[in-house]
Amino acid sequence: MSSGPRLVLVAGTTETATIDGISAAGSAPELMATTPSADAELVIYGGPVRTDVVPVSPTGCPTPAVFTRAIRDLVDFDVTVVDGGLAEPTGAPTVSVGAGAGRDIRNADPVPTAPGAFEAARQFGQRIPEDEIVLAETIPGGTTTALGVLEALGEEGSVSSSLPENPLDKKRRVVSAALEESALEPGGAAGEPVRALRRVGDPVLAGVSGLALGALQSDTAVTFGGGTQLLAAIAVLRHLGVETPLSLATTSFVAQDPDANVQNLAAKLAVDLHVTDPGFEEENHPALDAYVGGEAKEGVGFGGALSLADRAGIPMERVRSRCIEVYDDLVEEVPPA
Amino acid sequence: MSSGPRLVLVAGTTETATIDGISAAGSAPELMATTPSADAELVIYGGPVRTDVVPVSPTGCPTPAVFTRAIRDLVDFDVTVVDGGLAEPTGAPTVSVGAGAGRDIRNADPVPTAPGAFEAARQFGQRIPEDEIVLAETIPGGTTTALGVLEALGEEGSVSSSLPENPLDKKRRVVSAALEESALEPGGAAGEPVRALRRVGDPVLAGVSGLALGALQSDTAVTFGGGTQLLAAIAVLRHLGVETPLSLATTSFVAQDPDANVQNLAAKLAVDLHVTDPGFEEENHPALDAYVGGEAKEGVGFGGALSLADRAGIPMERVRSRCIEVYDDLVEEVPPA
Repeated sequence: MSSGPRLVLVAGTTETATIDGISAAGSAPELMATTPSADAELVIYGGPVRTDVVPVSPTGCPTPAVFTRAIRDLVDFDVTVVDGGLAEPTGAPTVSVGAGAGRDIRNADPVPTAPGAFEAARQFGQRIPEDEIVLAETIPGGTTTALGVLEALGEEGSVSSSLPENPLDKKRRVVSAALEESALEPGGAAGEPVRALRRVGDPVLAGVSGLALGALQSDTAVTFGGGTQLLAAIAVLRHLGVETPLSLATTSFVAQDPDANVQNLAAKLAVDLHVTDPGFEEENHPALDAYVGGEAKEGVGFGGALSLADRAGIPMERVRSRCIEVYDDLVEEVPPA
Repeated sequence: MSSGPRLVLVAGTTETATIDGISAAGSAPELMATTPSADAELVIYGGPVRTDVVPVSPTGCPTPAVFTRAIRDLVDFDVTVVDGGLAEPTGAPTVSVGAGAGRDIRNADPVPTAPGAFEAARQFGQRIPEDEIVLAETIPGGTTTALGVLEALGEEGSVSSSLPENPLDKKRRVVSAALEESALEPGGAAGEPVRALRRVGDPVLAGVSGLALGALQSDTAVTFGGGTQLLAAIAVLRHLGVETPLSLATTSFVAQDPDANVQNLAAKLAVDLHVTDPGFEEENHPALDAYVGGEAKEGVGFGGALSLADRAGIPMERVRSRCIEVYDDLVEEVPPA
């Protein structure tokens, strides 16, 4: 009865984001908690509703939600937002899977709602009527918790960053402390991925991997739209025994990030990589330049939306000009936070 | 940054619906609680998701959600569902305004969340970015609680029914008992409409009237899409001192209902009435025939959606054939409950 594809965006929070220097998904640590609520509003309505902000990095780089929304204006796809542990009210309608905000993973049990959210998301994923979904995430600090999950599963790999200089050493130290606090060795949760999500992960990863599992169980095609966080969700599925071929649609900004090395992890997880390059370097605009300079890179379904635009035959030149229009209109109406 | 119109559907419950013979919005009293959750899924996804049902009346007449969805396939409008006190999980994403399920109005304080939900809805309504919204409802038993609010405000009027034989006497007895339990005379809450919502109303009416007030305060055009329940929401606004011209888009089934006499109440409330006749009598199909026979009549934004189709120049013949297609596809996939 439905066609699709539908973008399913899981939006949530982890206090891991407030660790100094971990994330650029907000202009200040205290705004990180608002970023996913605002991102969801941007994608659904085109602007802030209950939140007052357009999330920007400390240097002013806009959230990729702006670009996902811009692409939505060109390619008509439906969006469902799933509450993966939001900490601030959003005007975007959300589906509840019982996820609570994640705590700093250096606590012993930072995501107690992970098993329940995973299962509720799985059941919801089974029931989504579309033939195809694109899964996406927004969670500041999410690459650190993704690294935590990968380490706990014993999947050697790296993660990307919303910062131009990836604070990988800091992330690895946070993950080491997190594993220790949960009495886990690296690889200690191999084959028990829901335990990894609960102990060193975040509620958004629980939602994304549950949704993916449920959708696959009901023969809904799944595209993972994002970067290394989505690869961590795929690792969860692999550790649950899912052997189907899986594909990740990501941006060239993630694909070209030597720190992230997604090619390596994708190959190990048997993931087909679809990279779309929006050609931002061909424009001369501060918002797009920031991405060319390595900021933000991905998130809020940007890579997934780009792949849908590409599939629909929309020239990247049109994508870029719409991205610029949406950004310019927004900053005129809502001064960046 | 947005155009609109956006259909804002407030979905919720009142245990008043379970009073024998009050409502046809479900095939059995125990299914009434599921109807709004299923209606929201139908409008958003085109079929049941977390619920297993396509709501039908005891005689098999389908929910108007089927037709609102059918029209959505022809006229592209966005939909936001607001949780106005849902009692069962829905796969439709919802905006929370803190509304709880309403109890039978023959209790002293059946809707304690009404004041909070009204205010949260008002704030959300102020922030909705579209230039125009169409407000709609789904709540079994809602005409009885609407009658309660009208009586408490001292607005003489009648209400429509989802049953072909409107059990108006029964509704009036329920409302009398409700007013007595809340120590209210008819007209006793004149000028205090939020008190009326709380004492003898329902959480959906609280959400609808709050949303309308907020939208009007921020110069968003509001069309009320529905029948006598939406007129009760307008009465709430009038008792708050709103004097702007307001308009109601409803179906011919409600407009032709002599019991409801919407023309009379609309005139008293200075409401501009837009009636759209989908011409269902020109087809020979059981689902459409049930409406011609006076069942269901309106709800889930049916009248509002019809007015959007009419405004977009869609011939009613196309509307009817799409309604039939959507219904036939649905009953093939999901046997009516």
